Formats: sequence, C-alpha cells, structure tokens
Amino acid sequence: MTDIWQLREGERLDDLVRDGMKIIQRTDQFCFSMDSVLLAHYVNIRAKDRIVDLGTGTGVIALLLSALGARHITALEINPVMAELAKRNVEGNHREDYIQVIHCDYTKANVLFPSGYFQSVVVNPPYREVGTGNTNSEPGKALACHELGASLRDVFQAAQYLLAYGGRLTMVHRADRLGDLIAIGREYHMEVKRLRLVHARPGHTASRALLEWRYGGHPEVTVDPPLFLHNPDGSYTEEVLAIYGKGKQNE
Amino acid sequence: MTDIWQLREGERLDDLVRDGMKIIQRTDQFCFSMDSVLLAHYVNIRAKDRIVDLGTGTGVIALLLSALGARHITALEINPVMAELAKRNVEGNHREDYIQVIHCDYTKANVLFPSGYFQSVVVNPPYREVGTGNTNSEPGKALACHELGASLRDVFQAAQYLLAYGGRLTMVHRADRLGDLIAIGREYHMEVKRLRLVHARPGHTASRALLEWRYGGHPEVTVDPPLFLHNPDGSYTEEVLAIYGKGKQNE
Repeated sequence: MTDIWQLREGERLDDLVRDGMKIIQRTDQFCFSMDSVLLAHYVNIRAKDRIVDLGTGTGVIALLLSALGARHITALEINPVMAELAKRNVEGNHREDYIQVIHCDYTKANVLFPSGYFQSVVVNPPYREVGTGNTNSEPGKALACHELGASLRDVFQAAQYLLAYGGRLTMVHRADRLGDLIAIGREYHMEVKRLRLVHARPGHTASRALLEWRYGGHPEVTVDPPLFLHNPDGSYTEEVLAIYGKGKQNE
Repeated sequence: MTDIWQLREGERLDDLVRDGMKIIQRTDQFCFSMDSVLLAHYVNIRAKDRIVDLGTGTGVIALLLSALGARHITALEINPVMAELAKRNVEGNHREDYIQVIHCDYTKANVLFPSGYFQSVVVNPPYREVGTGNTNSEPGKALACHELGASLRDVFQAAQYLLAYGGRLTMVHRADRLGDLIAIGREYHMEVKRLRLVHARPGHTASRALLEWRYGGHPEVTVDPPLFLHNPDGSYTEEVLAIYGKGKQNE
C-alpha cells in the first residue's frame, strides 16, 4: 500500500471523492477533468457487461466505473508513462479484480481482442482537430488534447470493431462538434440514442455533450434534460454535488 | 377589410398576439401550433434577405416573420384550400407588400424559381415518418402531420435547390429525430450551425429541436441555452411570455 502511493518526482496525489479512492496524477501530463467524471456517470452500467475504456490516462474513468458497479473493465492506454500510472492507481485502490490496464494503441486493438468482444465502449477522446487551437508544448498533454493519436473516425472505427452488435458507445466531447459526432458516427453504424448537453450555467451555450450511441441502433434519440454545472451565483448545482458524492461541499 | 375577415363554414378567427394581427384557421385542417411561433422567432432575420416558407399552411410563419422585420417573403403551399386561406390572412393583415403566397408543390419549386434564389428557407415540416404513429383520418391534417407529401430528404433537397450557397435553412422538428436531421442534412451539404432544444419544463427530456443549417457551412455548431416552455408550477416561462408579446398573460 504505502509503496504504491509513494509519489515520484512530478506526481501528485488527489482524492477521487468516491469510495475513498485516491489517484496519482502527473503534473507534466494531462490530468483528469470534470469531463471524465461526468462521462463515467453517464454510462449505463450493467455489472455483467465487458467494458473497454479507450485511452484511460490515469485510469480515472475505469476507477469511477468500478465504483459505480462495473465489474469487467479493460482500460487501454498508448502512453507508457500513463499506462504504468493507471496500473498503480488500480492497485492502490484494490481494483485489480475489476480493471485490467493494457499498454496498447487502441486503433490496433484488433490484434488483442476478437471483434464484438465488448458490450460497452467508453471514451473521453482528444477534443480538437489537428491544426486548430493551440498545440500544447508538452508532448503528453498534446496527445491528450489534440486528435494527434486518434481522430474521431479512428475512435468510431475502434468502437465498431470492439463492440458486439447492439452494444453501446458512450463519449464526452465538445458540444460544438455535435454535427461531426452524429454524422460521422452514422458512417460507422453508430446511432445516437441518448444525448445530454452540459452548460456551465443557465443561459449559457453548451460546452460539452454526453452521448450514447448504439451499434446498429434505430435512429431515435432521447435528449435528456440539460446539465448545468453552476447556479447563477457560481456555486455548484445540486446535481454536480451529487455526482461528486457531496465531496465538493466540504471543500 | 370586413369581407376578408368574414368567416365561412368550418373557419375560426384567432388572435396572432403580434402587431394586432389576426388569422383565420379551419377546424378541419391543421391549425398552427406553438412550434410555428417558436420557429419564426428562431429565424435570423435580415430585412434584405429573400425568405421562402415551405408549406406555409395558414400563413402563420410568414405573417410572424413579417412582424419581426422580414420584407421579402415567399410562402408556398400545396393544399389549395390552405393556400387560399393564407392569401386571405395576408390581405386581412395588410402584408401583401411583404408576403407572396403561391399555391404549388415545393418539391417542384425548380419550375418556379432559379437555383439559389433565396438567402433563407424556413420550414415546419411534417413530423412523423409514414408508417409510424396514427394517421389522421382528415386528409388535410394527415398531410400536415405525416411525411406523406414530403419526406425529410425532400425538404433538404428543396432547400438545397432554393438556397444560395451560404444561405440558411431554419426548421423546427421533433427532438428525437435529431440524428436524422443532422446526418441527412449533411448529405445535402447542410451543416447545423445553431441548435436549440425545447423542453416542456425543467427536468423533462426535449420535445422539439430548433435548428439552423448553413448551406456549405463548416461543421461547428452553437448549442443555445435550452428553452423551457413551462415553469415547474405549470405557468409559462418568462421567455415564452415574451415571445407571445405577453399576450398569454392576459388570458
């Protein structure tokens, strides 16, 4: 225990505010954001499902999914530094029975898994297209923020290969990419079934979209009530506090 | 004046609650709904634009657009009874200088207008696909509610023909058809640029979607703040009351 949580240079230990879990992050790499937390809570979790988390980073989504009832989670990570960190985080939180971390490129997952092996794919992919926005000078952060490693098409292609027909893909992305998310998904026979838009506060345009596709699904989407992160006075909304297990209230 | 508002059998006179306008509707035909009012208010109106309203019905959207500043409106209607009614409504409200009603099938608009003639297309199309839901036994109502006359593809095809490159298509539709609206639109080079979801009240899933496409637009969408029709206590929200010019408050 003590050895695992022993921090190395450039690392910090954070509280996951769920089941007493903790997580090591690296200050020179992409740290998990509220997006990952919202995504994990948007996944329709069935304990018997085999779930794969594409690009797990620190392992935060896999850890939260395990806290929410998932029992068969495979977490893939291309960056060796992060894959090793994710493994330490899984061990430190005693989730080895539920989460397997594999250091690999998920666009080449076909060498590791048979087609249709999973019932659920979860991914918090890079948000910006190459050539737009500012590229982060830290290589690890650039990989996590830009579609350098995997374009949206790569994500859908991997999901299509990995999912059983009728399986579900759950993703968080920028709300302004909704056109691509819906139209490109359809090219891969992924049909949006649930959509929830995330607004910083009432009266603001949406910043994020939470989406669930069904592989081979019928074109009919349920648009969930919007999620507001903050009240007009700037405090967190009750729903966000509930997602954080009220942990934020005590800060 | 008096002659135009003289009601015939099966007609009723309603208040448009905007500029003192009135509108005749037929009880055996589709009567305009809040959707038309919300749509007219979602249109980005520029006085110099040539706007075409596809399937104008009673002419309600064209009349509201004229009240909101539009000056060059062409209203197309396939049903001869409704086209004649729309003309009377335009005359009764003295909008002949701004609105031209044409009795025609908008899927054959290429015989009436050159390609790219309009800067703006507005449409409140039939909502249900043929073979789903209950078909209304009144022929006029069935045409307005089902995609008997024009499928979603017909609407996009007509819009693509009628719009100048860079022009805008604005539509209201069922929120659960968002997948088709975005993906099929893209087949016709229509890219969603603005999206607003309409919820009956906070905490409910969305019932309607207001969308603006740009012909040849770049794939980047602004998701507007949600529109709630009712407060938790069932009363209209302030925004809806403002759209109705506070008229509903006095009912």
